[in-house]
Amino acid sequence: MKEHFIQKAKEFVGETVTLKGWAYSVRKGGKIWFLLLRDGTGIMQCVVTQTDADEASFDIKNVITQESSVKVTGLVKAEPRSPGGYEMLVHSLELVALAEEYPISKKEHGVDYLMDNRHLWLRSKRQHAIIRIRHTIIKAIRDYFDERDFTLLDTPIFQKAATEGTATLFATDYFGEKAYLTQSGQLYGEAGAAAFGKIYCFGPTFRAEKSKTRRHLTEFWMVEPEMAFYDLDMNMDVAEDFVFYIISQVLKYRRVELETLERDIKKLEAIQIPFPRISYTEAVKILNDNGVEFEWGDDFGGADETIISNQFDSPVMVHRYPAAIKAFYMKRDPENDKQVMALDMLAPEGYGEIIGGSQREDDLTAIIDRIKADGATEEDYNWYLDLRRYGSFPHSGFGLGVERVVSWLCGLQHIRETIPFPRTISRLNP
Amino acid sequence: MKEHFIQKAKEFVGETVTLKGWAYSVRKGGKIWFLLLRDGTGIMQCVVTQTDADEASFDIKNVITQESSVKVTGLVKAEPRSPGGYEMLVHSLELVALAEEYPISKKEHGVDYLMDNRHLWLRSKRQHAIIRIRHTIIKAIRDYFDERDFTLLDTPIFQKAATEGTATLFATDYFGEKAYLTQSGQLYGEAGAAAFGKIYCFGPTFRAEKSKTRRHLTEFWMVEPEMAFYDLDMNMDVAEDFVFYIISQVLKYRRVELETLERDIKKLEAIQIPFPRISYTEAVKILNDNGVEFEWGDDFGGADETIISNQFDSPVMVHRYPAAIKAFYMKRDPENDKQVMALDMLAPEGYGEIIGGSQREDDLTAIIDRIKADGATEEDYNWYLDLRRYGSFPHSGFGLGVERVVSWLCGLQHIRETIPFPRTISRLNP
Repeated sequence: MKEHFIQKAKEFVGETVTLKGWAYSVRKGGKIWFLLLRDGTGIMQCVVTQTDADEASFDIKNVITQESSVKVTGLVKAEPRSPGGYEMLVHSLELVALAEEYPISKKEHGVDYLMDNRHLWLRSKRQHAIIRIRHTIIKAIRDYFDERDFTLLDTPIFQKAATEGTATLFATDYFGEKAYLTQSGQLYGEAGAAAFGKIYCFGPTFRAEKSKTRRHLTEFWMVEPEMAFYDLDMNMDVAEDFVFYIISQVLKYRRVELETLERDIKKLEAIQIPFPRISYTEAVKILNDNGVEFEWGDDFGGADETIISNQFDSPVMVHRYPAAIKAFYMKRDPENDKQVMALDMLAPEGYGEIIGGSQREDDLTAIIDRIKADGATEEDYNWYLDLRRYGSFPHSGFGLGVERVVSWLCGLQHIRETIPFPRTISRLNP
Repeated sequence: MKEHFIQKAKEFVGETVTLKGWAYSVRKGGKIWFLLLRDGTGIMQCVVTQTDADEASFDIKNVITQESSVKVTGLVKAEPRSPGGYEMLVHSLELVALAEEYPISKKEHGVDYLMDNRHLWLRSKRQHAIIRIRHTIIKAIRDYFDERDFTLLDTPIFQKAATEGTATLFATDYFGEKAYLTQSGQLYGEAGAAAFGKIYCFGPTFRAEKSKTRRHLTEFWMVEPEMAFYDLDMNMDVAEDFVFYIISQVLKYRRVELETLERDIKKLEAIQIPFPRISYTEAVKILNDNGVEFEWGDDFGGADETIISNQFDSPVMVHRYPAAIKAFYMKRDPENDKQVMALDMLAPEGYGEIIGGSQREDDLTAIIDRIKADGATEEDYNWYLDLRRYGSFPHSGFGLGVERVVSWLCGLQHIRETIPFPRTISRLNP
């Protein structure tokens, strides 16, 4: 039996079809009533009259409640005044299940209440728009790398060593050993680059962020490409081309959803490649010129990032950071021993860091020195060091946080709406 | 600068190009030597002669070791006798980094040794073939659902409740609460189906399997579609169409890799839809007819599954299982109260269960009874029960385990090679 979904109504105008879904809202008159039917793909106005519908179907108006599930059969017509541009003249209507009084009404609810009812809140137009844009972003990410001959390399969630510092690790008992949940697939990705040349991993990552912020989740998705024989400049070339591709796909396929969210689309359309590239040292000068007391060597806070990114319409790439504030695996700048070949990309409009990356240290002695300076041992990173022992090679990569990008492209105030079931310090359920 | 990769050699025959990679092997003569260059995308024979190469390049033969990293510039020619069909006449060769004596030699190594060196073992032809087939399978999975209007719904890794029983849960401290790592995204997927109609989630899942088997990992990837207004038969229609699509994509794009693995491709080509569908009761009869003492009500073991699947060339779907051996959320068979509307798909050639699914119980009272019978409380599943309170609807879905499918399509003896860095009871590193 052929299925019909509201988003493809154009294809079955003039036909009598059956739609299945839920009562988004009901408006009742004496001899006519209107059902806004929600089927998950769209909304269609269904018109129920005493002349066209059978009596039992018509009488459902006396019992039907918001979110009751129904099957509706009728003639689909173009109707410019209806939401979505089509409506159905109902012949028969079957109540599948009556809904109890729906907890989410038209009135304003607090965020905690909506989050407690996240499993129901997902049925709303706004959440639909966000999740659909998220889907398009994720598909764009995979397509980008798949079409450019990157090999997908799923890196492990359970890891023995920390990639990004030990303060934010989740741990689990692993048959008597201690295992940590991945903060990044990068170290494994580097092994993959040595095997396959260009790889990417893409999966959930975990940080036990103890602070409540608008930008942090404890569980978020990250894509991490890693490329053999790429230096920092080539890494930045990929990063900007990649982010520009994601934006273009969202503008191409999700314009309706951006409008639902009242996103200022012009701001996204104004983005162009190449993106500006400034050194950390230049970024510090921007802060100082804007009256911020900021010393070379400090790390940027959220407010600093906003001031820097506000200088530009496109995302800006900041490169060559002080070694002391960056991870052990980053390559020392050959021209300045105090710096590493790091790269952060800051989104416009104050959305902060969406990409962090670097050229990796490929010198065995230099990286062992950094490991020891961090208080770890060679033994902790033994297999990782093998990548420098057996055919070491220049290589680079970066990580892009999916939820940060969803938040920015959707124009959201808070990251909690960017993922179906967000996890924060105070939220583990539903 | 244009990049050149060996897998696209056809496109730059007759050109002088630079390739970057590693010495897969070296064969030395007096006035000529041969470097098999591995760049991650393929292998090319590079011919170094005293007449065509400069002296410094030629002399690298005296020091070069297996897996040393190099840049090689020369003229690419078609050469049917070379591996891959092309070879390079080298003009100059640059040694990027000399490799220490490579731990993986041509001689046979034990599996534990290879797994300890998994980060290096991934550089071998056999592992390349498997990981590339895995990539194609994962792309096929996403494309299948994306092209059929399913919405991607990433479900959370951290969960408060168990989906598949409490015996195999990994736990972590979540800011003072206890969180479990997901065994399945299904319960969340059902909320997604109520919101979007047809959804899929796809991510890593975790089971603390305490037994050593050839079929189990503690960390594996699973895709789980969930579909509103689908009954068991429609669920089976999707399952067979989906699996057939995956097979067809692997046969289309990964024939060379299947040959590298010496897979019996005819067995895969023999698979046809529709797949056979038998009830659990009929499956029991097959076992009894084959001399197995097996009673109605027992669960199939691996050996039983093999006997059943050996009756067919295509995967077989077994449906309507005893309720007592299946999960609480499965819909009771309206025609036999002892059975649930479950579905398992067994792969041919003894590869066992690759899909488990069901039509879900949509009756609030019935599902509460099952939850209590399992010793849990209504409160444990409160948000999940809301899906039955607010517009309950018939719905179905299933989960497909990626590594089981990789194992089967590649014809592997053990599941440990199906994922870049496998996790088992005795393996957490690398």
